[in-house]
Amino acid sequence: MADFNLNILGCGSALPTTRHLPTSQVIDLRDKLYMIDCGEGTQLQMRRMRIRFNRLNHIFISHLHGDHCFGLPGLLSTLGLLGRTASITIHAVQEIENYMKPVLDVFCKNLPFEVKFNFIDPYKHALVMEDRSVSVFSIPLKHRIPTCGFLFVEKPREAHIIREMVDFYQIPVRKLKDIKQGDDYITEEGEVVPNSRLTRPATPPKKYAYCSDTAFNPDIIPLIEGVDLLYHEATFGEDEKIRAKETFHSTAAQAAEIALRAKAKKLVIGHYSARYDDLSVLKEEADRVFPDTILGLESMILPV
Amino acid sequence: MADFNLNILGCGSALPTTRHLPTSQVIDLRDKLYMIDCGEGTQLQMRRMRIRFNRLNHIFISHLHGDHCFGLPGLLSTLGLLGRTASITIHAVQEIENYMKPVLDVFCKNLPFEVKFNFIDPYKHALVMEDRSVSVFSIPLKHRIPTCGFLFVEKPREAHIIREMVDFYQIPVRKLKDIKQGDDYITEEGEVVPNSRLTRPATPPKKYAYCSDTAFNPDIIPLIEGVDLLYHEATFGEDEKIRAKETFHSTAAQAAEIALRAKAKKLVIGHYSARYDDLSVLKEEADRVFPDTILGLESMILPV
Repeated sequence: MADFNLNILGCGSALPTTRHLPTSQVIDLRDKLYMIDCGEGTQLQMRRMRIRFNRLNHIFISHLHGDHCFGLPGLLSTLGLLGRTASITIHAVQEIENYMKPVLDVFCKNLPFEVKFNFIDPYKHALVMEDRSVSVFSIPLKHRIPTCGFLFVEKPREAHIIREMVDFYQIPVRKLKDIKQGDDYITEEGEVVPNSRLTRPATPPKKYAYCSDTAFNPDIIPLIEGVDLLYHEATFGEDEKIRAKETFHSTAAQAAEIALRAKAKKLVIGHYSARYDDLSVLKEEADRVFPDTILGLESMILPV
Repeated sequence: MADFNLNILGCGSALPTTRHLPTSQVIDLRDKLYMIDCGEGTQLQMRRMRIRFNRLNHIFISHLHGDHCFGLPGLLSTLGLLGRTASITIHAVQEIENYMKPVLDVFCKNLPFEVKFNFIDPYKHALVMEDRSVSVFSIPLKHRIPTCGFLFVEKPREAHIIREMVDFYQIPVRKLKDIKQGDDYITEEGEVVPNSRLTRPATPPKKYAYCSDTAFNPDIIPLIEGVDLLYHEATFGEDEKIRAKETFHSTAAQAAEIALRAKAKKLVIGHYSARYDDLSVLKEEADRVFPDTILGLESMILPV
């Protein structure tokens, strides 16, 4: 398995069905987990998918509709019961305080860890968070309430050491870290061995963009250009194109058009309206515009 | 199927497992639904059990621990999406306002129905609600925070008309309602036909008691004496008797002792700690005290 994967926990929309869970995804990147949205039942789905609670440190909430955040109170309570002590950061619009502060006051008086909030301006494309592995940027979306998507840009990886060359030059282990970062190696005799003979280039860093919920919005195309994987909501099919526009959602074909024009390498769709028992119509409509669209489904794990 | 049934939606405890859902039950009585507790995922489990959302008008919350009420926001939002207009009443301690008012403000600005609150004094055994079918009383319990159970006492039923006697005396249809209520019938000739010749006695009204979460508490015995069905929490087995006491929960044997001493006709247990993969030990421990204890499980429907 690659070390940058997308776990799809839920890909339904607001009305619950027995076929789908509300929205939640978990990015698994270099052994750290980043959650995007947290609908009701997310913690249970984490259990089912055997996603480790203690590797999660950041939760990104796209907007304050219940099907994207009603799982937060239960998840935080459970982290407390599991004895977590490391803080967790929730990245969301400031209004989330009006929801979560009372919840924390009533239910989490003795939580053994701190819940931090990092407020996002959903109208700006800006850096939301970065750590050693990833930079996360907001993507302004067009929905009925302030909403933003998230662009995950992996930090450059270290070059791969060529084991045979290390053996040949008998390079000490302590030098390897610097060589991975690009240093040449100077032998005891003073010979300079260029880095290019010692390493193979690193795997290029990958990008993942999450765009939900949103009306068809070509403004996002330059922000997500060339991503390795694009998740774009596809609440409706062409039969409900007018309804999609009215409710600030997208059709499967519109999601595919965004993917095509943004030159995304892969597209995965989700956030299906409860009216679609059979999702193949959505896949077909997307495929016609962007071939080989992936129909997102619960418990799916996709390499970015 | 009887017309007084208990639907068990979830019978796990605070820590989520893939085997159980957090607590929720729905009483189905004469075609009306009464919900008791509403843990995360309750609305989804209603869908799975095909419980009709629009027949629900009252929700009783035993206490403000998340595993008993984190499903409320999602359920209310869904009722709104389904176009509900009739009000719904939440019966709970007053502190629930601190949790639910912000939720309603942030997420339910345009809810098409009213959410009413009826505040309970959890320390008193008192009438909480009554309608034509049932009276619901609070049962003070012993837990870490203010908590009460609920006693559902069915209203007396109408007597059964003996069809053959109605035909024999050619009793007009308009008279039947009064006869069901106990009236005698006077023929056109002035003959008095006593009610006892026209009817069979009504089925005796039934009682259901819900007791969760609670430490072993014999004080409740007089309040629930002779109930047709008792639900009593059984978080732990005898192996964790000390832990049960410390956390104000009960063991299966203690639940059974309450049922025995209260002369309950049937006992169903639930609220199992996540540590019990195999619940048969809890059933055996309860059975030894109160034979034929029912091991409550998700999706179970029990006649009261």
